[in-house]
Amino acid sequence: MGAPLPAAVRAFFAEHRITGPGVVAVSGGADSVALLRALEGVEPLIVAHFHHGLRGAEADADAAFVRELAGRLGCRFELGGADVRAAGGNLEAAARRLRYGWLAEVAAATGAAWVATGHTADDQAETVLHRLVRGTGLRGLRGIAAAMPLGTVQLVRPLLAVGRVDVLAFLADLGQPFRTDTSNADPRFTRNRVRAELLPLLTTFNPAAPAALTRAAEQSSEAFDLIDRLAAELLGRAELPRAGDLVILDSAAIVGAVPLLAREAFRRVWEREGWPTSQFRAAHWHRLLAVAHGDPAAADFPGGTCARRVGRVVRLGRQS
Amino acid sequence: MGAPLPAAVRAFFAEHRITGPGVVAVSGGADSVALLRALEGVEPLIVAHFHHGLRGAEADADAAFVRELAGRLGCRFELGGADVRAAGGNLEAAARRLRYGWLAEVAAATGAAWVATGHTADDQAETVLHRLVRGTGLRGLRGIAAAMPLGTVQLVRPLLAVGRVDVLAFLADLGQPFRTDTSNADPRFTRNRVRAELLPLLTTFNPAAPAALTRAAEQSSEAFDLIDRLAAELLGRAELPRAGDLVILDSAAIVGAVPLLAREAFRRVWEREGWPTSQFRAAHWHRLLAVAHGDPAAADFPGGTCARRVGRVVRLGRQS
Repeated sequence: MGAPLPAAVRAFFAEHRITGPGVVAVSGGADSVALLRALEGVEPLIVAHFHHGLRGAEADADAAFVRELAGRLGCRFELGGADVRAAGGNLEAAARRLRYGWLAEVAAATGAAWVATGHTADDQAETVLHRLVRGTGLRGLRGIAAAMPLGTVQLVRPLLAVGRVDVLAFLADLGQPFRTDTSNADPRFTRNRVRAELLPLLTTFNPAAPAALTRAAEQSSEAFDLIDRLAAELLGRAELPRAGDLVILDSAAIVGAVPLLAREAFRRVWEREGWPTSQFRAAHWHRLLAVAHGDPAAADFPGGTCARRVGRVVRLGRQS
Repeated sequence: MGAPLPAAVRAFFAEHRITGPGVVAVSGGADSVALLRALEGVEPLIVAHFHHGLRGAEADADAAFVRELAGRLGCRFELGGADVRAAGGNLEAAARRLRYGWLAEVAAATGAAWVATGHTADDQAETVLHRLVRGTGLRGLRGIAAAMPLGTVQLVRPLLAVGRVDVLAFLADLGQPFRTDTSNADPRFTRNRVRAELLPLLTTFNPAAPAALTRAAEQSSEAFDLIDRLAAELLGRAELPRAGDLVILDSAAIVGAVPLLAREAFRRVWEREGWPTSQFRAAHWHRLLAVAHGDPAAADFPGGTCARRVGRVVRLGRQS
């Protein structure tokens, strides 16, 4: 035993053509410690630990544990930190933003080619379920990306197809200790209730439910990538020279397209222009398409934006 | 109160351009009785009730209830039936197949233009959850179709965006009684556990979770339709004249396509040819694409099919 995990990691690195020195984000928990041990000897590693300044002595002990482990494995150790509470807003979102920003800096400063995190298939299933319940649609169903850009390097999740049960078996086989984050049991965090209540109930219906959720995420991701690409092509065909701050689209190109792609083309405009979309619902994207059809001829949208059909074009911009 | 349901049904009929006489499938339960009452006066109606021969005196009383209701509303009544147990296989699947087959016959025999069933947003959420847990991917996430062909007519679900709570409020407002199928509480049926255990737990995370699942189904359905259309176009470009029972594809067209579309093109071939796909997993569709790449040059597939790359073409057929 113990062989499957390193083999899965090597297969992932080969499939994604990842080589050269990299940064491994290690919290000290089972997943990231297993990732570090599975990567031993594959490539030169920099061990990066981010202290969120949230859990006092327990967090200090986590940092000390990871520093000691890095030293024992002969890896360079980088310690980062920030006062996450001072960042304001949603605590988890702020922690994630600060952590990944710092990981990108470490990669740039050390000449690393990639950053790896220890997310597992269990994390993927939890994420998909959590988003499905909140209602983020196909976009949210994609779940956690196996590989995506992070600053100037690649962010990769080599354990994303590996179950936590295999992570724990691998560590037990090595006799490798790890730290337990006691806040993971706190039912005040929705994510912990998804893990402790919802996933176990799902597995009474189908023991392979987590794998089923992971596959749904893969298929959603692949479908979404295709739709995104086709929407970009549509926007390339539909967009005319802009008029100052106004974005101008050829209404015939938009109206003649598959409605799903037309709505995604509008979304691309909003995202590119930095116009707020957090208040947009499905009905708003449908209404933009209705304006392209000329019925209604104009409409206001959340975040102070508006759309107007004028002759053969649709004008998009800030409300004046 | 009571207005929203008929308004929703009228909006649905207008959106889907449904007119003329139609068949309403009425079990006697709250959903289908509410649909029938909401459709009163919209179009000429034929009330169709299917007796599954499974629930003895309770089912006989359901049929009598629906017959009496149809008479009171001045609608023609059609009673169908079959010995579902004698059909063999999965009982629910056999019941569905026999019921819809009979509804199509009723529509053809009475000159109806459409058949309507009483599926609600709650049914949609249950279906999506059930399929997600079983692992049917994007295809399964589409859930129940709002409109689809049934024989020579349209099958429509005008209440698919309406919650069961609104159905019950509408019936209470009319003082309209309905029948309760006691087998809906039987926890031996997975579907009933999804309704009684899983959905209530989801709504503790988000009271609007059923609506979120319904939107995920809509988006999956729209994405799937686009992918299906593009895969059909790809197959149209890739397919060469067949050689007897063998289907011949131009490997360059397949290899040059987006992998998702190439795999869906293979799936279309299998479905068109009537080759069995029930044993296919995601890995098999990936392997077919690998054969198109020529690595491996040939492979056998579940259900006695095989694929072989020969020169510039891929040959698909039954194992000889």
